[in-house]
Amino acid sequence: MKKSLIALAVMAAAGAASAQSSVQLYGLADVWFGSAKTEVNGNSVTNTAVESGGINTSRWGLKGSEDLGGGLKANFQLEQGINLDTGAAQDSSKAFSRQSWVGLSGGFGEVQLGKVWTSYDDVRAAANDTFNANIAASNRAWLGYSDRTDNGLKFISPNYGGFSGSLTLALGEDKNTDADKNNSASSVASLGLHYANGPVVVGFAHQRQKQSGIGGVFSALPGVAAAELQALLPTGLLQGKTTYNVLNGSYNFGMAKLVGGLSHVKQTIDGAPDSLKAKEFNLGVEVPLAANLNLGLGYARSKVEDSGNDLFKTTGYTGALVYSLSKRTSVYGALTQAKLDVDNSPSEAKSTLYGVGVNHKF
Amino acid sequence: MKKSLIALAVMAAAGAASAQSSVQLYGLADVWFGSAKTEVNGNSVTNTAVESGGINTSRWGLKGSEDLGGGLKANFQLEQGINLDTGAAQDSSKAFSRQSWVGLSGGFGEVQLGKVWTSYDDVRAAANDTFNANIAASNRAWLGYSDRTDNGLKFISPNYGGFSGSLTLALGEDKNTDADKNNSASSVASLGLHYANGPVVVGFAHQRQKQSGIGGVFSALPGVAAAELQALLPTGLLQGKTTYNVLNGSYNFGMAKLVGGLSHVKQTIDGAPDSLKAKEFNLGVEVPLAANLNLGLGYARSKVEDSGNDLFKTTGYTGALVYSLSKRTSVYGALTQAKLDVDNSPSEAKSTLYGVGVNHKF
Amino acid sequence: MKKSLIALAVMAAAGAASAQSSVQLYGLADVWFGSAKTEVNGNSVTNTAVESGGINTSRWGLKGSEDLGGGLKANFQLEQGINLDTGAAQDSSKAFSRQSWVGLSGGFGEVQLGKVWTSYDDVRAAANDTFNANIAASNRAWLGYSDRTDNGLKFISPNYGGFSGSLTLALGEDKNTDADKNNSASSVASLGLHYANGPVVVGFAHQRQKQSGIGGVFSALPGVAAAELQALLPTGLLQGKTTYNVLNGSYNFGMAKLVGGLSHVKQTIDGAPDSLKAKEFNLGVEVPLAANLNLGLGYARSKVEDSGNDLFKTTGYTGALVYSLSKRTSVYGALTQAKLDVDNSPSEAKSTLYGVGVNHKF
Repeated sequence: MKKSLIALAVMAAAGAASAQSSVQLYGLADVWFGSAKTEVNGNSVTNTAVESGGINTSRWGLKGSEDLGGGLKANFQLEQGINLDTGAAQDSSKAFSRQSWVGLSGGFGEVQLGKVWTSYDDVRAAANDTFNANIAASNRAWLGYSDRTDNGLKFISPNYGGFSGSLTLALGEDKNTDADKNNSASSVASLGLHYANGPVVVGFAHQRQKQSGIGGVFSALPGVAAAELQALLPTGLLQGKTTYNVLNGSYNFGMAKLVGGLSHVKQTIDGAPDSLKAKEFNLGVEVPLAANLNLGLGYARSKVEDSGNDLFKTTGYTGALVYSLSKRTSVYGALTQAKLDVDNSPSEAKSTLYGVGVNHKF
Repeated sequence: MKKSLIALAVMAAAGAASAQSSVQLYGLADVWFGSAKTEVNGNSVTNTAVESGGINTSRWGLKGSEDLGGGLKANFQLEQGINLDTGAAQDSSKAFSRQSWVGLSGGFGEVQLGKVWTSYDDVRAAANDTFNANIAASNRAWLGYSDRTDNGLKFISPNYGGFSGSLTLALGEDKNTDADKNNSASSVASLGLHYANGPVVVGFAHQRQKQSGIGGVFSALPGVAAAELQALLPTGLLQGKTTYNVLNGSYNFGMAKLVGGLSHVKQTIDGAPDSLKAKEFNLGVEVPLAANLNLGLGYARSKVEDSGNDLFKTTGYTGALVYSLSKRTSVYGALTQAKLDVDNSPSEAKSTLYGVGVNHKF
Repeated sequence: MKKSLIALAVMAAAGAASAQSSVQLYGLADVWFGSAKTEVNGNSVTNTAVESGGINTSRWGLKGSEDLGGGLKANFQLEQGINLDTGAAQDSSKAFSRQSWVGLSGGFGEVQLGKVWTSYDDVRAAANDTFNANIAASNRAWLGYSDRTDNGLKFISPNYGGFSGSLTLALGEDKNTDADKNNSASSVASLGLHYANGPVVVGFAHQRQKQSGIGGVFSALPGVAAAELQALLPTGLLQGKTTYNVLNGSYNFGMAKLVGGLSHVKQTIDGAPDSLKAKEFNLGVEVPLAANLNLGLGYARSKVEDSGNDLFKTTGYTGALVYSLSKRTSVYGALTQAKLDVDNSPSEAKSTLYGVGVNHKF
C-alpha cells in the first residue's frame, strides 16, 4: 500500500524528524528521607518527610545540538523540574519549568531564546557553599532572585583564556491597552562575568528586576508558610525594583576547596522613599575525606535594612557528607538550619532539616 | 539475587516494553524575537516580545510503528504543544494537547482512535499561504475551527493514484442524566479529499461542529483580549452549529509556487432565526530566491454576515523570508498584519507583528 | 571556539548525563470505542464513547538502572498516566502521576523512595479477574483504595524460593503549626506477601490508611457522578481510618486459569461509634481459545455494612476476548456491568460498558 498523502501531509505538519534521532533524553532523581522541623515564634512542628532535591533539583529533559558546518550549531534544551517525592511538576503551569530555549552557537559565542537561566544565576550558582546543593547555606539564608526568566534573550561569549561573559534580557510583555498603557513592561536584565583557570574560579554578576517582588526570603525557610513569615514583617516592603550584585569564587587547594561570596541586594519601591538593602555573605569548605567521600560545610548570612534601619537577619549553616557510588550516583547525609530574626522584635522563625538521600543522574 | 516476583509483577503491570525500544522521540523548537503591536479603536500598545511558533508550533512527542506482518502495522503518536518562550504547555490541562492516538494501518488504509487532527484540518493546513506558517495570512484572518478533537475516530484511505480521502468523527460524550437528558451529544464530523500529483495539489474538506462556538475570530488577532473583541460585536452570535467548507490547492511552477483557497463558514443558532455566514479566501506565492532562501507572501480575507447583513470583515497579509541552514534548521524574518473592521461602526482592531526567528526540528 | 565556561557551568548544573544514555523510554496506548450506559434510579443515559484504558491504563515513562558493581544497582522510574482519548493527564496536578521514585537494589532486596505503588496494590493487582484489566469485575465492584502513595518508602525483599515480601510506608507531612498542631500526620502503611511457583500464585496483603476517605466506591461506577452516588448514601460515612486485607491467588490448569480473591475493608471514624465494613470476593477464569485468542470472565461483589446494618451492595461482571497481534499489540472486545444497590431503599445505580479496543505497548 502506498502511504496516504494526507497521512504524509500530517506527518510533515507534525515536524517528523529525520530517521536518526538527534535528541538526548536525560535527567536527575534526588530524594531524601529525614526530619523537617519548623519553629515560628516558639511554636514548633516536626514532620518526618520524604523530600525531593536535597542536593540537586530532580528533573527530566530533552536536549540536542545539530552541526550546521563552519563551526555553527543549532542547539535546544527543554527541562522540567519534578518533585520526585510526589511526582508533581515543580511548577504545574509549565511543561518545562527549568529551561525551554532554542538558539545558535559558533565563533561569536552562543545565543539562546526562550526560557533561560539568567546570567546572574550562572555565576551565583557556580559558587554556593556545600557542593552547590539546594540545601547550601547560601540557598537557605540569602534573599531569593529570579534564577530563570520567560521571554529571555541570552548571549554567552566565547572563552578567552579562562574569561567568559554572559548577558540576559527579558521583557514581561505586559504592557496593555488599559488606562495604564504608558507603563513600561516588567523586565529582568542580567550580566555575568566568569574566570576559571586551574584551581581558581572568580565570578561577578549583576541583575536588575523591575516590578518583581523579592519574595525569596520566604523560599529560604522551607516548611514555614510564606504568609506566616510575611506576618512577621512590615507590609509593603516586598514590591518594587530590585538589583542584585554578587562577587564570589573558589580556590581548590587539593586537600580542601574554599568557596565564598559577597552579595548586595537593593530594593526600591516606585513612588516611595523606602529602600530595602541586604548585605550577604557565605563561606564554605569542601574536603575530600577519602576517594569517594566528600565533606562540605557552609555558613551564610543576610542582613536586611529598611531605609537604614535594621529590619531582619537570616542565617544558615549546612553540613553534608556525599559518598559517590559511581560517576552518576551518590548517597548523602545532610543537616541544615536556617533562621530569621526580626530586629527590635521577639519575632523569629527557624527551619531545621536533616536526613539521608540518593542522587542519581541519567 | 533473584529478582523479586513482586517487582516482576510491578514491572509487568507497568507494561515494560521489550529490550529494543520502539519509540521515536521528536520535536520542534521555534522562537522569534520582535515587536507585537495591538490597536483597538485607536488605542494602541506595542510590546517587544519573544514568542513561540512563528512558523511552526513548538512541540515534543513520542511516536512509533510496529510491523505486525502481512502489511498490518500498529501505530501511535503522543504530541504536546509548547510555548517555548515560557516553557508552558499550550494547553496546561493536557499532557499531549496536539495528538494522542493509537491505531492500525494496512491495505485498507489507516484507523486512528483518540485525540486526532480533523480531516478538515489535514486539507486546510495543506494549503495555507506563506509556508503554512502559524503567521500565514489565512491563519490570522480566517475564522477559527476545531483543528483537532478529543474522542476521535479517524479513517484515512489508501492512496489511489494521487487521490486520498479521510473521515473523522467525534462525540462529546456529554449527554447526562439531568433534566436535559434528551440532548444529543456535541460532535465534530469531518471529511477531507486530497489530490496530489507532481506540481499539483487540490483539496476539498467539510466539517460540521455541533454546539461549539466559532471563537476562532479571536484567535486571529493575538494580543487583543477576546473580551475586548467580543465587546465590539453583537452578543449571542457565537454559539451554535457551524459548518465549514474549504476548497484549496497549489501549483508549483518551479520558479514560484502559487497557493490559494476558498472557504465558506455557516453558523446557525439553535432555536433562533439568526445565521452567521463567512466567505473567505486566501492567496499566496512562495518564491525560491536562492538555493537556501525562500520568500513567501500571502493575503487572506473573511467577510462575515449576520442573517444577510454585513457584520464584520477581517483581512490579513503576511510576508516571510526563510533561510535554511540545514534540512532541520532555518532562520526567518516575517511581518504580518491582521485587521478586524466592524461594519456600520467605527469599531476596529488591528494586530501587527514582525520579527526574526529560529526554527529547529529534532 | 572553546566552549564558554559559563555554558559548561550551566550544563553541569543541568546534570548533563554521560554520553551513552541510560534511559529507557516506554509506554502503553490503550483505547476502546463503544457504548457507556449509566442508570441512576431508573434515569438512564447512553453515550457513544471513545475511552482510554480498557485493559491497561495508557501511560508513558522513563526508567533506568545503573550497575554499581557488587550486585548493587541504582534504579529510577518516572511514569505518567494518560487519558489517551483526550490527551489529558490522568491527574493534571502531576508530571508523573503513576510512579516517581529512585532507589537502590542488591542482595538485600530493593528500596524505593518517592511516589510508589503500595505493597497492597502489588498483591491486589496480581490477581484481579479478567486479565487484570481496568474493566475487571473486581476493579468495578470492590471499594477503592490508595494504589500508590506520595512520600513513600518501599522495601521489596529478595525472592526466597518463590516467596517474596514488600513493605510501604508513607507519611502525609501534613502536621502544622496551627492550633491542631498535635495532630499526627496522615499515613499509608502497607504490607504484601507473595508466593509464585509454577502454576500457583498466592498473595496476602494488608493496608492501613489514616485520615483518608474510601472514595473508591464511586470509582467503581464510571459515568455516574460521585455527587449522585453520594446522594444515595447516608452522609458522614466516608471519612476516617481504613484497613484493607486481601487474600488472592490463581492456578493455571493449562486449559484454563482460575483467579480469585477475598477482601475485607473496615473504616472507622475518629470520635464516632460508626464503622463501615465491606466483605468482598471475586472469581475469574481465563481460557486460551486458540493460539492468539483468550477469553476472560469475571464476577465480583462487595457487601457493605454500617455498624452492623446492611448499607449497600455492589456487584460487577466482565467478559473480554483478547486477540494478540504480536507480543506488544492486541485487539479486544469487552462487556462489563457494575451495579450499586442501597439496602432498604429503592435507590440504585448501574453502569454498563461495551466496546472494542486496541492495546499497544511501546
